[in-house]
Amino acid sequence: MSKLKRVYAFGNKKADGNGEMKELLGGKGANLAEMNLIGIPVPPGFTITTEVCTEYFKLGQEKTVALIKAEVEAAMKQVEGIMDAQFGSKENPLLMSVRSGSRASMPGMMDTILNLGLNDEVVEGLAKRTGNPRFAWDSYRRFIQMYGDVVLGMKPESKEDHDPFEEIIDQLKEEKKIELDTDFSVDDLKEMVTRFKKVVKDKTGKDFPTDAWEQLWGSVMAVFDSWMNDRAVYYRRLNKIPSDWGTAINVQAMVYGNMGDNSATGVAFTRDSATGENLFNGEYLINAQGEDVVAGTRTPQEITLEGSRRWAKLQGVNEDERKAKYPSLEETMPNPYKELADICKNLEAHYKDMQDVEFTIQDGKLWMLQTRSGKRTGAAMVKIAIDMLAEGMIPEKTAVLSVAPERLDELLHPIFDTDALKNAKELAKGLPASPGAASGQIVFFADDAEKWAAEGKETILVRVETSPEDLKGMNVAKGILTARGGMTSHAAVVARGMGKCCVAGAGSIKVDYRARTMTIDKKEYKEGEWISLNGSTGQVLEGKVKTMLPELSGDFAQLMDLAEKYTRMKVRTNADTPRESLIARDFGAQGIGLCRTEHMFFEGDRIKAMREMILADDETGRRKALKKLLPIQREDFEGIFEAMQGLPVTVRLLDPPLHEFVPHEEASQKVMAEELGLSLQEVKAKVDSLHEFNPMLGHRGCRLGVTYPEITEMQARAIIEAALNLKKKGIKTFPEIMVPLIGDVSEYKNQEQIIRTTADKVFAERNDSIDYLVGTMIEVPRAVLTADKVAEVAEFFSFGTNDLTQMTMGFSRDDANTFLPEYIEKGILKDDPFQILDQTGVGQLIEMGVKKGRSVKSDLKIGICGEHGGEPSSVEFCNSVGMDYVSCSPFRVPIARLAAAQAVLKQSK
Amino acid sequence: MSKLKRVYAFGNKKADGNGEMKELLGGKGANLAEMNLIGIPVPPGFTITTEVCTEYFKLGQEKTVALIKAEVEAAMKQVEGIMDAQFGSKENPLLMSVRSGSRASMPGMMDTILNLGLNDEVVEGLAKRTGNPRFAWDSYRRFIQMYGDVVLGMKPESKEDHDPFEEIIDQLKEEKKIELDTDFSVDDLKEMVTRFKKVVKDKTGKDFPTDAWEQLWGSVMAVFDSWMNDRAVYYRRLNKIPSDWGTAINVQAMVYGNMGDNSATGVAFTRDSATGENLFNGEYLINAQGEDVVAGTRTPQEITLEGSRRWAKLQGVNEDERKAKYPSLEETMPNPYKELADICKNLEAHYKDMQDVEFTIQDGKLWMLQTRSGKRTGAAMVKIAIDMLAEGMIPEKTAVLSVAPERLDELLHPIFDTDALKNAKELAKGLPASPGAASGQIVFFADDAEKWAAEGKETILVRVETSPEDLKGMNVAKGILTARGGMTSHAAVVARGMGKCCVAGAGSIKVDYRARTMTIDKKEYKEGEWISLNGSTGQVLEGKVKTMLPELSGDFAQLMDLAEKYTRMKVRTNADTPRESLIARDFGAQGIGLCRTEHMFFEGDRIKAMREMILADDETGRRKALKKLLPIQREDFEGIFEAMQGLPVTVRLLDPPLHEFVPHEEASQKVMAEELGLSLQEVKAKVDSLHEFNPMLGHRGCRLGVTYPEITEMQARAIIEAALNLKKKGIKTFPEIMVPLIGDVSEYKNQEQIIRTTADKVFAERNDSIDYLVGTMIEVPRAVLTADKVAEVAEFFSFGTNDLTQMTMGFSRDDANTFLPEYIEKGILKDDPFQILDQTGVGQLIEMGVKKGRSVKSDLKIGICGEHGGEPSSVEFCNSVGMDYVSCSPFRVPIARLAAAQAVLKQSK
Repeated sequence: MSKLKRVYAFGNKKADGNGEMKELLGGKGANLAEMNLIGIPVPPGFTITTEVCTEYFKLGQEKTVALIKAEVEAAMKQVEGIMDAQFGSKENPLLMSVRSGSRASMPGMMDTILNLGLNDEVVEGLAKRTGNPRFAWDSYRRFIQMYGDVVLGMKPESKEDHDPFEEIIDQLKEEKKIELDTDFSVDDLKEMVTRFKKVVKDKTGKDFPTDAWEQLWGSVMAVFDSWMNDRAVYYRRLNKIPSDWGTAINVQAMVYGNMGDNSATGVAFTRDSATGENLFNGEYLINAQGEDVVAGTRTPQEITLEGSRRWAKLQGVNEDERKAKYPSLEETMPNPYKELADICKNLEAHYKDMQDVEFTIQDGKLWMLQTRSGKRTGAAMVKIAIDMLAEGMIPEKTAVLSVAPERLDELLHPIFDTDALKNAKELAKGLPASPGAASGQIVFFADDAEKWAAEGKETILVRVETSPEDLKGMNVAKGILTARGGMTSHAAVVARGMGKCCVAGAGSIKVDYRARTMTIDKKEYKEGEWISLNGSTGQVLEGKVKTMLPELSGDFAQLMDLAEKYTRMKVRTNADTPRESLIARDFGAQGIGLCRTEHMFFEGDRIKAMREMILADDETGRRKALKKLLPIQREDFEGIFEAMQGLPVTVRLLDPPLHEFVPHEEASQKVMAEELGLSLQEVKAKVDSLHEFNPMLGHRGCRLGVTYPEITEMQARAIIEAALNLKKKGIKTFPEIMVPLIGDVSEYKNQEQIIRTTADKVFAERNDSIDYLVGTMIEVPRAVLTADKVAEVAEFFSFGTNDLTQMTMGFSRDDANTFLPEYIEKGILKDDPFQILDQTGVGQLIEMGVKKGRSVKSDLKIGICGEHGGEPSSVEFCNSVGMDYVSCSPFRVPIARLAAAQAVLKQSK
Repeated sequence: MSKLKRVYAFGNKKADGNGEMKELLGGKGANLAEMNLIGIPVPPGFTITTEVCTEYFKLGQEKTVALIKAEVEAAMKQVEGIMDAQFGSKENPLLMSVRSGSRASMPGMMDTILNLGLNDEVVEGLAKRTGNPRFAWDSYRRFIQMYGDVVLGMKPESKEDHDPFEEIIDQLKEEKKIELDTDFSVDDLKEMVTRFKKVVKDKTGKDFPTDAWEQLWGSVMAVFDSWMNDRAVYYRRLNKIPSDWGTAINVQAMVYGNMGDNSATGVAFTRDSATGENLFNGEYLINAQGEDVVAGTRTPQEITLEGSRRWAKLQGVNEDERKAKYPSLEETMPNPYKELADICKNLEAHYKDMQDVEFTIQDGKLWMLQTRSGKRTGAAMVKIAIDMLAEGMIPEKTAVLSVAPERLDELLHPIFDTDALKNAKELAKGLPASPGAASGQIVFFADDAEKWAAEGKETILVRVETSPEDLKGMNVAKGILTARGGMTSHAAVVARGMGKCCVAGAGSIKVDYRARTMTIDKKEYKEGEWISLNGSTGQVLEGKVKTMLPELSGDFAQLMDLAEKYTRMKVRTNADTPRESLIARDFGAQGIGLCRTEHMFFEGDRIKAMREMILADDETGRRKALKKLLPIQREDFEGIFEAMQGLPVTVRLLDPPLHEFVPHEEASQKVMAEELGLSLQEVKAKVDSLHEFNPMLGHRGCRLGVTYPEITEMQARAIIEAALNLKKKGIKTFPEIMVPLIGDVSEYKNQEQIIRTTADKVFAERNDSIDYLVGTMIEVPRAVLTADKVAEVAEFFSFGTNDLTQMTMGFSRDDANTFLPEYIEKGILKDDPFQILDQTGVGQLIEMGVKKGRSVKSDLKIGICGEHGGEPSSVEFCNSVGMDYVSCSPFRVPIARLAAAQAVLKQSK
């Protein structure tokens, strides 16, 4: 057997591992080790490495056990020494927990088993030692259920099937006329255990395992298996976590928050995960186990007094009631509270990041169960980065790197219009669990949210509480509303992680799943009705409330300035109107990388002239129609150039196939025929003649300009005349005329000659001139392959990664949804290549194109104008191949700016 | 000025150049020099190089003249010395001809000017010196017309406009009540000259140039200009001649075949250009100029007695009439004939190739005007190559290289069915000008032939005689029939060059262009009626006569054996049926490179089961339908495997999008709904759901196999079961299962696993096994870019160059005709990339794919199965990148085999 170390013990302020070893020990395991090393009280235990997980999937259970048995036994000895108890002992039993812990946090995704080591005899010993038989039998019945569900596979596959254990509990409640679990007597619990063991025997054909070690191995393997369960697989896909990372397993001595009123369990954040405020906060439950807090079944209490008061105000609870029913930890257990607060401060300072911790207080003693970097909203990311920079906790580069560019999107999302909000009717109020504004139609089931989203509907997912099974539906809903659960409930944590608007624990809402309605103050709201959520205030509003653009904080501006400082690439925008141009400029765009001219032809009367041009029989007819379009285009360009004054504007010549401009329904064709004084037959014949089997590969792009040179001529004239008109007004313009879809330099030359000849003609007519560039899109694979030839004449390249992806991969973006989802599901593709640049294939071509282009013109200006220009990993790629700029839609400009800066910082490492 | 030599003189058995200098002197110039060097009588002259032509298009007339003036004058001096006459002299005038001559022969494409140096005074001198004023004045009027048309631009642009010179001739004929040109008196000719000069003055505003040198320079520049005329440009495109080659110009002393009955002019071939027989042959006209023979205006006579007798027999002319009216040169001028025959023998031996010569006999003295490699039919190419090899004239490699692979196509073309021919009604008989069998609808104008062809109609172009303007129409017609002209008429020569069936000089046919009819024996045939031509017998047949496959000659077999000897690559075929497989095997195919399985699903009841599969709601339904398809597919494969026994068969899994299998019209949808027991609505909904915007880039290829693994499973099972069934019968099979359209190795792995699992299952069921390979098409650019990864698992690559071309260039083959013709016209593309592999772009990818693939698996089997696999230049490319085989349609197998052998010979040079 290999001498590789596979088990890392920790406990009593010592540890085999440390916080740097996340790849091997998982995030939780590494942090448990690290906490020991910095003197924080952690229940002792050991971590089985992620490598063992990978081995397990190759070798299977038996061989894996053989591989780690000796190491595990040695580590267990150490735990027994520290806890002064023995695993499997009847008299002085040591109970253990088994938890997964992968490199990246995957909250609630995988399985956990608590209270390992119990059996009929041990439970008696435990009862005796703790003097708390109720606790001992409650732990035992919980253990059997957990183990049965997770290890023995008794958990029902679909939600409609009943959990056999839950069925027994319900039966017993009926028999005993009991309502709450807590009402069960010790004898009831004993009866429950008997029935639980019987159902295990009935369903699995085997007795429930009584041997502690058998229980341990079974649990370890089951947790490994849970790495491959559907939820985990989906979560990894959503969060781009490779499945070959595997999970580590943490086996730890049990500590109990449910040993009476001097025990508690809870979670805490070192800062506010929604707003980023430097405010220690968290929630706890007295006499409870950890899972109870997250599950949202009981409404948890705030740990700080300040937080508790704020909560009470939001919920309309007066101070007396609060003190009596919902006191803070600060009030109920001041000493453990103080220790917790100090530990949290230390942890944040140690990790230099906002921490999310789990703790248990057993009989007055505080144990830390976990610490990790806390999930937070985009806004919180920005605020925490800038605050920590100001506090001197982190340097500038770390601040820039600590914000996920994609998450800036949340800050740029619309918020409710201030006036509209005044008139909106508030239906209910819950916790502001995840900020943002969302309107949508009510749905009550996650799979409905998915179905409705597929039909293009916007939904609000309304649940009593959410669970990991709801993940997909939560991801596609516009917002999430729950009737129960606190700021750390599943709904709240997941929503913040997704940057999705969420109002949690709106207690006045009654959900009736069967009737598909929710009732607030006796008023019923049906599935499909519109509501709006304000995730920043916790308000639930009636109907669809108007939204507006948010004002950006000073923190945001400071972050952008920092990004600017470290970036190399420029960020431009894709914009077709002065309005879009101005928005992008406000966001810091340094020019337009793609101004599509075709959109300009659709509005109002323009489409008429455009159609006249298309329907013309010959060049003369086309020229006549183009003459009408010229002043319109010129005016459009003037508007855009003025909005972008002083900055370059890349104008792409007409690109889409002409059939996109003509009507395809007979009624519209009739109108068109009348307008143009033609017969319906003529119009139909022309429209038919424009039909193509594969328009994406058809008569479009520069192919139009080659066959109808007069179109290129008109567009070139409009651009140059617009620039000259502005020059007269003292406005500086830098037009860059871009030829689309070339596959060979001769196409480029053909178009370039028309453009230059036209420009020279206009210059002569006006007796004036401007500087301009002529360049080309690189979007056809052949253009990449011949980029050296193209670069001899073109003044700039702009990679059109949308088309390049289509042709390189042979995917039609309009059709790929027929198989792409299944491709991603089956792991054939990691991502949708239209969202995230396929660096392996398309990226290889881009690199080749850059190299070939620069081989003949070392200073060739190169950018990207496909939609990938605003996607962080793609921006990073663009930086790595040496592009001069990326261009993206206005709202993604800040994202691209941050990603561009991070690219420099990451690549200089 | 540069010291480059730009003018090469020749004459009197001396020459500055030689036969190797075709690039510089053009074919004609190089051969004129060479003929001098080997002692053959050639009128002296000089050649202006092709480089000057290129310079001319850059510098223009004036600078070009300055560049060559001194050299031309010196060369002219030399000619004057040899001819003992002076250019421009009145007393002892030397007349010159100016002819183009490019590297590749372009018969009739460019302009020629004869009799340079004449003016009002010189003509009198010429009349005096020759004692033949008629000849002198006839030459003068011809010169003015030629010069006026060519140099002064008086030739009408369209055929409807009248040539002003022809108008004058017609007027004069009317005035003088004369029918034939030869009836003009000397005075008539003088009057004609006067009128000609007047019309020149009227039209051009200038007097006709009288200065010999001015005439010379004008002619030289006009001939350079003719390099760019429409006909020449079209011819070059058709024959793939680059336009930057330019043309050389040959200026030569005039000799006259029209100086009386002791003078003649003609053309001769050293072998039969239609059949390849070793038979000296040719045609001549007494008292005529060279152009008269080619133009077909007078019926020429055979030069050999044997030929003359054969001709008479075909035409039904008896021996007495033949002797009196159409005697051979052998009879009329035995001495010059003998000299000509000897010279021809020498020339063929010297050039080691069949020669096509032009000669003139002036007053009993033979002058050779030109020799060149003779154009010939594909059959003649093969026969001449094999004969010359047998005669010891050329070695094997030369024989292999001397046949243009593309031309083998003619030998494989259908001929008339023997039985059908017996019953066919012969309408007329002409000369067997170019062999082959053709049926088509009568058209009378070349542009109609083009129009009709564009509509998919097959035509026979019927003309009194053809001219270079008819070229495009001749190219698209199935056959050509002329009423006038001999074996060397324009129609005959061009048709043989094109390998197009032609019957020439069918004198019994009267063509009425205006009425668009032809009359034979008083019976009228209208435009659009069907006739058939037998180009091997000269028969014109009524209606559409049935055709059959030709039997291949022993020469052909010998050539194929030679090719086999020198080839490296194997040649496979693309075949989907046993019949096609057998044809290809007969042609020497060494396996199937592409067996498409989808065609098998269209016939009869199969389409029903296929549609049932497509319409099924789930896997169970699909499996049920696939079960019906399994035995059908298995049987198909058994047939093909048996036909190809002992050879590998590459089966491609289902490739096209499913919508190709469902009906799109409501009527058919109704039938389908009834057959499948569904509602019309259901069928419609399913058909609609299969619609894609760009099906070429949609849900097809292995994407079907990934989303419907049961299809791959069924196909794999059918292939393996078929092979096992044949194994039982003792028939050896080598199935190669090919996964289409992969873009990533993970798609391949997904499909491979299904195939291997299925095969293992079948092997276990049958307790038997066979060897088989699994490999993939490389047709998506991304597959090329990741070919190293793919090669780690795939056992073979087959480049699908149809799709690869579509995606690399961004062209949809179904739509490209909207702009491709214009692209080729404008020179943006040299060829249709779907016919001739784009080596620059697509070829670059292929090379990359081969390199990447072999970098991880040095012996990876690689082939091509796109349609380029049968196109000679593409086959050559495949050899150069190291492919193991090419695959093409059955009838192109011989072409590919020859091209593959030539590739080795060319590349080893």
